[in-house]
Amino acid sequence: MSLHVHKYGGTSVGTAEKIKGVAKKLVQEKKSTQHDLVVVVSAMSGETNRMTELAKQMQHRPSAKQMDVLLSTGEQVTIALLCMALEELGQEATSYTGGQVKIVTDDAHGKARIEEIQTTNIQADLDNNRIVVVAGFQGVTASGAITTLGRGGSDTTAVALAAALKADECRIYTDVDGVYTTDPRVEPKARRLDRITFEEMLEMASLGSKILQIRSVEFAGKYNVPLRVLSTFVEGEGTLITYEDDEMEKALISGIAFNRDEAKVTLAGVPDMPGVASAILKPISDANIEIDMIVQNIAEDKTTDFTFTVHRNDYEKTMQILQNICAELGAKNVDGDNKIVKVSIVGVGMRSHAGIASQMFTALADEGINIRMISTSEIKISVVVDEKYLELAVRTLHESFGLSGE
Amino acid sequence: MSLHVHKYGGTSVGTAEKIKGVAKKLVQEKKSTQHDLVVVVSAMSGETNRMTELAKQMQHRPSAKQMDVLLSTGEQVTIALLCMALEELGQEATSYTGGQVKIVTDDAHGKARIEEIQTTNIQADLDNNRIVVVAGFQGVTASGAITTLGRGGSDTTAVALAAALKADECRIYTDVDGVYTTDPRVEPKARRLDRITFEEMLEMASLGSKILQIRSVEFAGKYNVPLRVLSTFVEGEGTLITYEDDEMEKALISGIAFNRDEAKVTLAGVPDMPGVASAILKPISDANIEIDMIVQNIAEDKTTDFTFTVHRNDYEKTMQILQNICAELGAKNVDGDNKIVKVSIVGVGMRSHAGIASQMFTALADEGINIRMISTSEIKISVVVDEKYLELAVRTLHESFGLSGE
Repeated sequence: MSLHVHKYGGTSVGTAEKIKGVAKKLVQEKKSTQHDLVVVVSAMSGETNRMTELAKQMQHRPSAKQMDVLLSTGEQVTIALLCMALEELGQEATSYTGGQVKIVTDDAHGKARIEEIQTTNIQADLDNNRIVVVAGFQGVTASGAITTLGRGGSDTTAVALAAALKADECRIYTDVDGVYTTDPRVEPKARRLDRITFEEMLEMASLGSKILQIRSVEFAGKYNVPLRVLSTFVEGEGTLITYEDDEMEKALISGIAFNRDEAKVTLAGVPDMPGVASAILKPISDANIEIDMIVQNIAEDKTTDFTFTVHRNDYEKTMQILQNICAELGAKNVDGDNKIVKVSIVGVGMRSHAGIASQMFTALADEGINIRMISTSEIKISVVVDEKYLELAVRTLHESFGLSGE
Repeated sequence: MSLHVHKYGGTSVGTAEKIKGVAKKLVQEKKSTQHDLVVVVSAMSGETNRMTELAKQMQHRPSAKQMDVLLSTGEQVTIALLCMALEELGQEATSYTGGQVKIVTDDAHGKARIEEIQTTNIQADLDNNRIVVVAGFQGVTASGAITTLGRGGSDTTAVALAAALKADECRIYTDVDGVYTTDPRVEPKARRLDRITFEEMLEMASLGSKILQIRSVEFAGKYNVPLRVLSTFVEGEGTLITYEDDEMEKALISGIAFNRDEAKVTLAGVPDMPGVASAILKPISDANIEIDMIVQNIAEDKTTDFTFTVHRNDYEKTMQILQNICAELGAKNVDGDNKIVKVSIVGVGMRSHAGIASQMFTALADEGINIRMISTSEIKISVVVDEKYLELAVRTLHESFGLSGE
């Protein structure tokens, strides 16, 4: 018997009608495929905000431990309602909170990590032809405290359950019908991908594709759980996220990712001596500012220009810190720009093909787009360009790498 | 160290402001009395209805098991919010769901009975000077399924915890400031009682005083937990429910209870032979109709008149059943009246005093009130009178037995 784990997010179970729709879908799926089904659900959309508002009225900075007790009720409501809807359709179902499964986590409240999942009871329910409905996003510590897994935690629950139960596929139902070559709002010619590798998906996700949380993709890759993203509301095959295979290598580039939230700062004319990078970055990291790209060039006069990017929200703070360091290090000056964006091409195919970078830079140059920074990894090349060029850059690269289809 | 268990119902924790008010009250109480405090809370008022409405949209007759999963989230929200409010005031607190405590119950979903309570963790928290906040109304089966205790279940949780922890007092905070000699809406001279016995409270409760659920009073009596009913919103000592002591015997009668929901039916001229009562009552009980008072008189012609009372909602159905039996048993006729009420005097003092009944009947007769039925127990005398006499009867008895004070 084949086992599938399905996950439905908050918008997919946002109303009584939608929950009944999910129940109908599941019963049909079970009838037509004979798959064993485990279903992971989120809180009804809006519930988490409602509860967070209540919490803020109680406590200036609500305790993470009690927030977990509070927020975990959201999914508990959904599992009960979905089981009722399934029973109404004549399908027997069992509900589980994270604690009832047990999904054992560490005690990092609000962002707990799964340590162990007990599957005996769920397996027994599946053997009795029941649909198993599990509350996403939540777990329990070894000593019995309720925890939550943080943003996108329901995806993580689904993938972790799929791994623990050795499921044949983990399906993430959401409000988009798959992973696209780029954001269709920027490039209307963007196409849905039938397949993408875990590595590519990680690069796409971390670059701003908000479909799946990075942790769940990492988890799926680690335990080799085939992951499929598809729409709750529209029929279709979605996008399968899996390991690289021969067919995939044919495509040089799978997609174009971009990030609008970046800002770029430069400390220019820093005397080039050992420890200078650390002297610059230490106070930034002490201020809890995360750094994305870093570029350093050595000039002929034995000084160096040190450039990096941060989240746009941290721009002012970063500039201030650098002003202080500037004097200390005897650097020339501090420069910054918060009107920049990052555009990246992602694809496992580039590993085995030379010339991808030059094709990218040429395509951008032909459109008169000035590249301000470059950073590369094995399956990704990112460039920083002026904000105003975002759409042009994305469309140009989409066309140049043949993603726009026929 | 003295230990008090407090219970706050849905209206007492119905808004964010009210929860903060309860937190303030608890912190003051702890400071001024140095008591260890365990607090049992209900769901915020309105939440249970909201969730029941959702459930009805899912399933024609929502499964009791899933209703428990659903409804138990209500108290879980309250425990989290109350702990946050306590922490905001600098008071450390720990929250427990029923399952976390563990409050182990049988598996009668929707009306489960408590079988065992584990107190080790709670005791450890109290020893660390923390306030312990427990979700009322809920428990967990030995195999881990979530259960609820049914109507008034939070009172039962509080009393059961008080018994298990050997608390010095269990305080039920509600929207009335104590137990009264009778309903003040009927007799404005009604007085709050400082003390009442468990037995009297049971008779008052079952006769329509809706302050405390019968089960929690029984439980408190059984385990000798002193129970105090008092107002969340008004300062005062409330009413202590406890075992009989010398002082109490001075009062003959503690209160006047009444019930407007009764109807009376009579099967007249039934041949008086063995098994006749059972032949009459069996089909009534088979129809799930509950019987309250029963009176049977034997006439000189060897026939009997058999009279009993039922809830007014069951009146029509009962009359129909009796019409059928009437022919079978060869009885004369069926008679009924759904415009009657029951008025009772309750008091442990009547045990040791003759003449209470005659004083009651004389007082009513002096006002021209005709008594239609009489029923007595050790600490209670009930009469059935025409509905129109309710107020007059209650006030007359309240005055006659000296309950109206100076």
